[in-house]
Amino acid sequence: MAVGSEIFPSTMHPVAGFKLGVASAGIKKPGRRDVVLMEIAPESTVVGVFTLNAFCAAPVQLCKRHLETHSARYLLTNTGNANAGTGAQGVEDAQRCVDAVAQLCGAVSEEVLPFSTGVIGEPLPVDKIVAALDDAKADLKEDNWRLAAEGIHTTDTRLKGASVQVELGGKTVTLTGISKGSGMIQPNMATMLGYVATDAKIEQSVLQTLLRSSTDRSFNRITVDSDTSTNDSCMLVATGISGVEVSSEADLAVFAEALDRVMLDLAHAIVRDGEGATKFIAIEVEKAAAQKEALDVAFTVAHSPLVKTALFASDANWGRILAAVGRAGVEKLDIDALQIWLDNVCIVENGGRAAQYTEEAGAAVMAQEDITIRIVLNRGDVAEKVWTTDLSHDYVSINADYRS
Amino acid sequence: MAVGSEIFPSTMHPVAGFKLGVASAGIKKPGRRDVVLMEIAPESTVVGVFTLNAFCAAPVQLCKRHLETHSARYLLTNTGNANAGTGAQGVEDAQRCVDAVAQLCGAVSEEVLPFSTGVIGEPLPVDKIVAALDDAKADLKEDNWRLAAEGIHTTDTRLKGASVQVELGGKTVTLTGISKGSGMIQPNMATMLGYVATDAKIEQSVLQTLLRSSTDRSFNRITVDSDTSTNDSCMLVATGISGVEVSSEADLAVFAEALDRVMLDLAHAIVRDGEGATKFIAIEVEKAAAQKEALDVAFTVAHSPLVKTALFASDANWGRILAAVGRAGVEKLDIDALQIWLDNVCIVENGGRAAQYTEEAGAAVMAQEDITIRIVLNRGDVAEKVWTTDLSHDYVSINADYRS
Repeated sequence: MAVGSEIFPSTMHPVAGFKLGVASAGIKKPGRRDVVLMEIAPESTVVGVFTLNAFCAAPVQLCKRHLETHSARYLLTNTGNANAGTGAQGVEDAQRCVDAVAQLCGAVSEEVLPFSTGVIGEPLPVDKIVAALDDAKADLKEDNWRLAAEGIHTTDTRLKGASVQVELGGKTVTLTGISKGSGMIQPNMATMLGYVATDAKIEQSVLQTLLRSSTDRSFNRITVDSDTSTNDSCMLVATGISGVEVSSEADLAVFAEALDRVMLDLAHAIVRDGEGATKFIAIEVEKAAAQKEALDVAFTVAHSPLVKTALFASDANWGRILAAVGRAGVEKLDIDALQIWLDNVCIVENGGRAAQYTEEAGAAVMAQEDITIRIVLNRGDVAEKVWTTDLSHDYVSINADYRS
Repeated sequence: MAVGSEIFPSTMHPVAGFKLGVASAGIKKPGRRDVVLMEIAPESTVVGVFTLNAFCAAPVQLCKRHLETHSARYLLTNTGNANAGTGAQGVEDAQRCVDAVAQLCGAVSEEVLPFSTGVIGEPLPVDKIVAALDDAKADLKEDNWRLAAEGIHTTDTRLKGASVQVELGGKTVTLTGISKGSGMIQPNMATMLGYVATDAKIEQSVLQTLLRSSTDRSFNRITVDSDTSTNDSCMLVATGISGVEVSSEADLAVFAEALDRVMLDLAHAIVRDGEGATKFIAIEVEKAAAQKEALDVAFTVAHSPLVKTALFASDANWGRILAAVGRAGVEKLDIDALQIWLDNVCIVENGGRAAQYTEEAGAAVMAQEDITIRIVLNRGDVAEKVWTTDLSHDYVSINADYRS
């Protein structure tokens, strides 16, 4: 199940200096494209953000280590196996894959970053992956985003991509990306992965800041079931081949906005493809006293099973939303001072159901696939947004039946 | 649905000086017993703990206010309506009920505490409740616990009670209690309620400390769906009529242990009757460096929808448990140093599946109704326990279909 209609862009603009190659290693199913190699032009800058889960998979450990000393030239992704919970053997296995890419492509191992997604706790089938590298390398081309989007998928029901172009200094700059994931962590199929490339030229530390702050407005603001994966990774590559150097404040603002559009599209696509999702829910907290309390309120509502089941039932159950706000741990929260809205319908005011509220008005909003819950705390001027889904019978089926 | 068999005690020992009366006010259904009055002998000590939800219902506000200045003589409970989200009118309505009890029984209003549970946001049917008070008063007797347990129920599928006797100073001291709730918050039917009475004589501030710490080992350690109700209340009454004064350290220890037994029985009964529950899960965190991290780990696992659906599926999915532990926010958690056990089967060690683990051994534990997940952090000497349920199709049905 997924909310709304397919949204993979008809045009995925190639990014000069960034090539993608896809191959079949037969990790879980023969013939399935399950290995993706990405080649990055020399002189590019490459940055990444990774899961905060203390239980972080072997490939993530290698990525972090390699990025400390080298700029990446190759990104290798396999599906079907997460190489997580695999201990020391897992790190060795990831290293063997990385070494094979380095040897094949004439790079040093530290210039290769590994990404794995799939079943936890099974040994990585290194030989199968290594055997597929020739094909992946032969397939490398800039116009291969759609196939790569397919290649990084696991239980996703949809391809996830975004591509925008902006004018900077009279020239066109391209940003194109793909992602995968249909829960923050999938049932045994850990992982949200994101890869975004641009032909802009951006200095390493600036690029890192851009990625981190854009992630905080996109991938770090989505949740399907509150679980954080062991393999979550998002990479941002700037090849610089457009010749457009993004460094002035004005240019950075334009670029950041374009990056946000790509990252938000990729993040929202994951929510819309959320396990069992029938609704796409935006939760906006306004007039909070601080960012922490805004996020605490937003995520408490987003994670509440009672709110989520009410959304699944299209039930404008304001009492559950208000109760979730009330237990978010906001100090000295004055319940009488806040308002809660469903789209443009005020449902809570003065500590209870809004006087002008009618069940019909609430039901009309609830019947929609896309719904915004807006919580106005009236304590300050901080705003935050997060996105989530409802909690359906299918969520339970998907996650209870997965291994059986 | 509920886990295990009915466990209401065949004998609920009466507590001298504590009477219960039940009546029908016809709040939701004609003829249903929905009003419970409890009468407390003079010279008793009475203490309570209440929900931390900022959105706290009108009766809870009144309870807190009255307890500040007076010792309670009467506890009035109605089901069918939570008097929550009802603003200033709700407080006025609760006050009218309290005034009526005071007048009928010859008490002052501040000696009466109101408790309400049921639908949120509907005005309290004060007249109906007041009309039932005569019957409730006429029914007051010490041997009425079972009927009172029935009278405080809403969507509970089982009666919840516990009763123990201990010897102190050569005399018998009785502790008897009842509770209601089948989720931390029910769908619109907010509330966990608990009432425990003893004939021991215990000083007010000591009694408050006893209740608070016992609550921290029982009601504050259970969770069905992470939602905290707006009306949660637990009262502890010590009538003193046994003549046994509990004040020495040794006596306090015996009493505290007996109180824990009663409170744990009442709390566990709520979990076993949890919405859609098919399993009763104990989560024990051992060798933590601090209480906070022990509780963070325990509740993160207890609230994880992926862990809960795996438990519903009887799937020994160690990867989901390990991933939940990993995202609990414990600083510098060394995943390689911890162990995770299902009952007496070690499932995780050295950062992955335990070497000696077999699917058969895991499946055998998972087939049970009662399961203990034990997480040994090996960071210190703090231990904590919490109890929860699985997440089933019925949970979604109960909560999605409730108002429709």
